[in-house]
Amino acid sequence: MDEVIKLSHGEGGADTQDVIKNIFYRYFNEPHYNDLSDAYVFEAGQKKYSFTTDSFVVKPIFFRGGNIGKLAVCGTINDLVTAGAIPLYLSAGFIIEEGFPMEKLHLVAKTMGDVCKQTGVKIVTGDTKVVDKGSADHLFINTTGIGLVSEYYNPKKVEPGDEIIITGGIAEHGTSILLDRYDLGIEADLISDCSPLCNIIHGLGRNLRQVKLMKDPTRGGLATALNEIATMMGVDVEVNEQMIPMKSEVKSICNILGMDPMYLASEGRMIIIVAKGYGEQILQLIKELNHCNETRIIGHFTSGYHGKVYMKTWIGGKRIIPILEGQILPRIC
Amino acid sequence: MDEVIKLSHGEGGADTQDVIKNIFYRYFNEPHYNDLSDAYVFEAGQKKYSFTTDSFVVKPIFFRGGNIGKLAVCGTINDLVTAGAIPLYLSAGFIIEEGFPMEKLHLVAKTMGDVCKQTGVKIVTGDTKVVDKGSADHLFINTTGIGLVSEYYNPKKVEPGDEIIITGGIAEHGTSILLDRYDLGIEADLISDCSPLCNIIHGLGRNLRQVKLMKDPTRGGLATALNEIATMMGVDVEVNEQMIPMKSEVKSICNILGMDPMYLASEGRMIIIVAKGYGEQILQLIKELNHCNETRIIGHFTSGYHGKVYMKTWIGGKRIIPILEGQILPRIC
Repeated sequence: MDEVIKLSHGEGGADTQDVIKNIFYRYFNEPHYNDLSDAYVFEAGQKKYSFTTDSFVVKPIFFRGGNIGKLAVCGTINDLVTAGAIPLYLSAGFIIEEGFPMEKLHLVAKTMGDVCKQTGVKIVTGDTKVVDKGSADHLFINTTGIGLVSEYYNPKKVEPGDEIIITGGIAEHGTSILLDRYDLGIEADLISDCSPLCNIIHGLGRNLRQVKLMKDPTRGGLATALNEIATMMGVDVEVNEQMIPMKSEVKSICNILGMDPMYLASEGRMIIIVAKGYGEQILQLIKELNHCNETRIIGHFTSGYHGKVYMKTWIGGKRIIPILEGQILPRIC
Repeated sequence: MDEVIKLSHGEGGADTQDVIKNIFYRYFNEPHYNDLSDAYVFEAGQKKYSFTTDSFVVKPIFFRGGNIGKLAVCGTINDLVTAGAIPLYLSAGFIIEEGFPMEKLHLVAKTMGDVCKQTGVKIVTGDTKVVDKGSADHLFINTTGIGLVSEYYNPKKVEPGDEIIITGGIAEHGTSILLDRYDLGIEADLISDCSPLCNIIHGLGRNLRQVKLMKDPTRGGLATALNEIATMMGVDVEVNEQMIPMKSEVKSICNILGMDPMYLASEGRMIIIVAKGYGEQILQLIKELNHCNETRIIGHFTSGYHGKVYMKTWIGGKRIIPILEGQILPRIC
């Protein structure tokens, strides 16, 4: 293991898994740390609740399509959704650098409040810390959430033939951050996809029964999320390159910069694994929801059991989509 | 209101209240933000749960008697206890500066795991972010917790005659941080009081019925906590200087440095407001608990209704203990 923390330890890929397994899992001794989900599920009364946390360190804190506050609320809402839960309560912990403009704090808090009003989620407890100038980069926010797990959601083991849905174009958040962070001189009609996805739980209702697993492709993008699912399930994944929704702006900007959009973050998309034969039905339900009109079935699980992700390419070939090693774009969330 | 964030906005005093009221309360629109408690209480099934968050930015991250990890776990455990809850689950969100020694991360995580084993509290979900060198000061940790509120705990309005208990010597954490942060050349046999206080809930059991309110005197110390209680309740407080437990080391170090220990943080003490006539009974129960052998009744509520805190001094006088304005010692937690 490395002797010091590197940026890649925060990228959500192999190095992050190292820290989690060798340090946090070891000392905290919680078996479900092996679990794929970003949320822990506990029982209270006769019901199940999900509990999840995320700290946000995005740079810059204001970007096309949002700011760190929107990201913090949507990010934790979406992590609760991955556990099949209707998000209820959020906490918000602010670490603010001395000298941070009060006006910007107003803007960030207002955005957070707006997403709450829109979704019915409540920020019910908070904390404010200020550190001396130079000890933090403007503003960091932690949000931790509690959600009520739908009685219809029962995650199940995936099997060959199960279908893979993504609810919209990939890499829009990562590409937006790229454009805003570096002075690239590229003009583009593109904004971050950052948005709350709790409508998926409401929209699917009883049909959640056909959903086997959900995961949001944030850090490390679609490629990393699919690899995590394949590794955990020990079943191979095949995705069809032509079916992956991607805006032409994302494609051309990534081309110019030599970035692979498969590894760039989305912040308002969900990967939904659906039982074999139910893909089309779930697809139609999701398509009607806000933020989800570009929903597509992008692939399925195959009868291979190596836990690998394959892509059927445009020209008909097949290549492995490897797990991310090292760093691609730090501080996107 | 100020145009930029100052260190005093994170000190827990009047300036922090300004930010909470003028920004967070305004946009998040949650009426219980006016509440005194650090924890939000919600119902699930037939039971009540408390939910609270805290980010930790203590400097230095290793100090006599603990480190940022111990503080992060104990701090949130104790905030849950203030709501009369048995702490159950914690989340842990790490923001780590690039280059942070892996060995230190092991030490911090091990301490967190140790407090969990000792208390039965579980860290069930986490998050790891890494920021580039210079963008954070070593390590920040957010912990957010869920606790089960005791069926015997029913916070009530305080009345004249209600008694005020503190569970041990004040200002030991703040004074320890002072000694370790600045190279003061003072040798002292003193460590931070940082410790988990969930045993108070177990130890009091049915006797929690006589407890009207609990609050931990962290940022801003005993003076700030008592002022918050007095202001919120609109009842005057009288504390007896001679009864306030304080180690001689704390007294002499504060004397040398010209600091008022009434405003320095404790991280393992609880202020317990007990119904008139029950002080002695509760005192005896608390005294038997770990970390609580110096428990004392330090004062009571009087028949004044100005929400002020008075201290009966050693020589028999009476003076106002004012609310903290500006900053005294930043980044103690």
